[in-house]
Amino acid sequence: MTKVTAQLSVSLDGFYAGPRHAGDGDWMDSAESAGFFRVTRWVTNAMAWRERQGFAGGERDANSDIVAESFGAAGAYVMGRRMADGGEIPWGEEPPFRAPVFVVTHRPRETLVRGGGTSFTYVTDGVASAVEQARAAAGGRDVAVAGGGSLVRQVLRAGLLDELELHIVPVVLGAGLRLLDADLDLGEKEAIELTPTRVVATPEVTHIRYAVRGRAPLVLDDRGSGGGPTTTVA
Amino acid sequence: MTKVTAQLSVSLDGFYAGPRHAGDGDWMDSAESAGFFRVTRWVTNAMAWRERQGFAGGERDANSDIVAESFGAAGAYVMGRRMADGGEIPWGEEPPFRAPVFVVTHRPRETLVRGGGTSFTYVTDGVASAVEQARAAAGGRDVAVAGGGSLVRQVLRAGLLDELELHIVPVVLGAGLRLLDADLDLGEKEAIELTPTRVVATPEVTHIRYAVRGRAPLVLDDRGSGGGPTTTVA
Repeated sequence: MTKVTAQLSVSLDGFYAGPRHAGDGDWMDSAESAGFFRVTRWVTNAMAWRERQGFAGGERDANSDIVAESFGAAGAYVMGRRMADGGEIPWGEEPPFRAPVFVVTHRPRETLVRGGGTSFTYVTDGVASAVEQARAAAGGRDVAVAGGGSLVRQVLRAGLLDELELHIVPVVLGAGLRLLDADLDLGEKEAIELTPTRVVATPEVTHIRYAVRGRAPLVLDDRGSGGGPTTTVA
Repeated sequence: MTKVTAQLSVSLDGFYAGPRHAGDGDWMDSAESAGFFRVTRWVTNAMAWRERQGFAGGERDANSDIVAESFGAAGAYVMGRRMADGGEIPWGEEPPFRAPVFVVTHRPRETLVRGGGTSFTYVTDGVASAVEQARAAAGGRDVAVAGGGSLVRQVLRAGLLDELELHIVPVVLGAGLRLLDADLDLGEKEAIELTPTRVVATPEVTHIRYAVRGRAPLVLDDRGSGGGPTTTVA
């Protein structure tokens, strides 16, 4: 049963990338600004990631297993246009995806077929269409929303995301781009409820997988609230 | 060996309380606004918390054990003025702390001695002084920064916090007051590094305890970055 999944490495204060500098808006520039490499270091050190990139070395550990698992689970990808543009040259002739990638864009373009099973199909009629096309291409495996963060937000906001895995890196950066930010456009009495389904803890990063239960009215359970702001665990 | 600790329940998007409404600034109003009870429900449902409040019922489970542990570990508390003011009446003659509480305030006031071992000492010469007085009173147990969130931020910013435990509740609220927000005043090349030391996962909340290693220059390890923005686990 195909799920639509997304995963993102975030700092403890919720940032997946450094601040976007005024006047560029380029993902790579933002990615390379302060803090980003700190947040993704556990990935770039993982052997399972380095193998896919054709890099030597790396750690074969629980973090690497998480990366390997995510590659294995994805039968197709959905990707934002900036991420696809930024990766086109460095990914080269054999990109690490080894599966069809559907790029959400406003610019029509012929499908780009690469080696190793990766292709890039440019979808101009919106996120929901890209997710549907990816679902059809996934062969029963999952549709992974590869990024960037703003696309993950769009998919979440549209109610299309079934599973979100956050890789929470124990660093506070103080500034940057947040995955879960105000542009989710939740109403004051509305929330997105999730259920943690798996937690893997390592010294470098805490991996928490959530089933997304979707938007729901906030259930305010004030049992015990008569006691006032009493708790020290609040 | 006395540690200075803090813990806070936060939504997955990092909020410990609902938005503060313009024109009041009152903690209670903020606490009661949308979302707050959702974030602290696991606490108010815990038997260990309800016992301290004199309420019947509650769940005796792993979450309750976390609450009991935190009460047991604290030999003294540091508290913000708004939290202390807001609690004074509802906490009544036997507040749940059962230990000396040092309130950071600008208004001098006589120490208030309550039943059950709780006293409130009003400290007018700053956060560091309150922490020092609490340390001297803690009898070798820990100094717990009880809240509110802005006091936790102050203690963290001042480099006085040894341990931070976040209780991450699986709900996205979209707005509110964040513990880890821009007013931490980190420089662009500076971060706060932490180390996760314990993770307890339950369906209602993920408890992550961190040792705070303090402010550090950001170490940018770009090993592998030549591959570009390749990872789907980023």
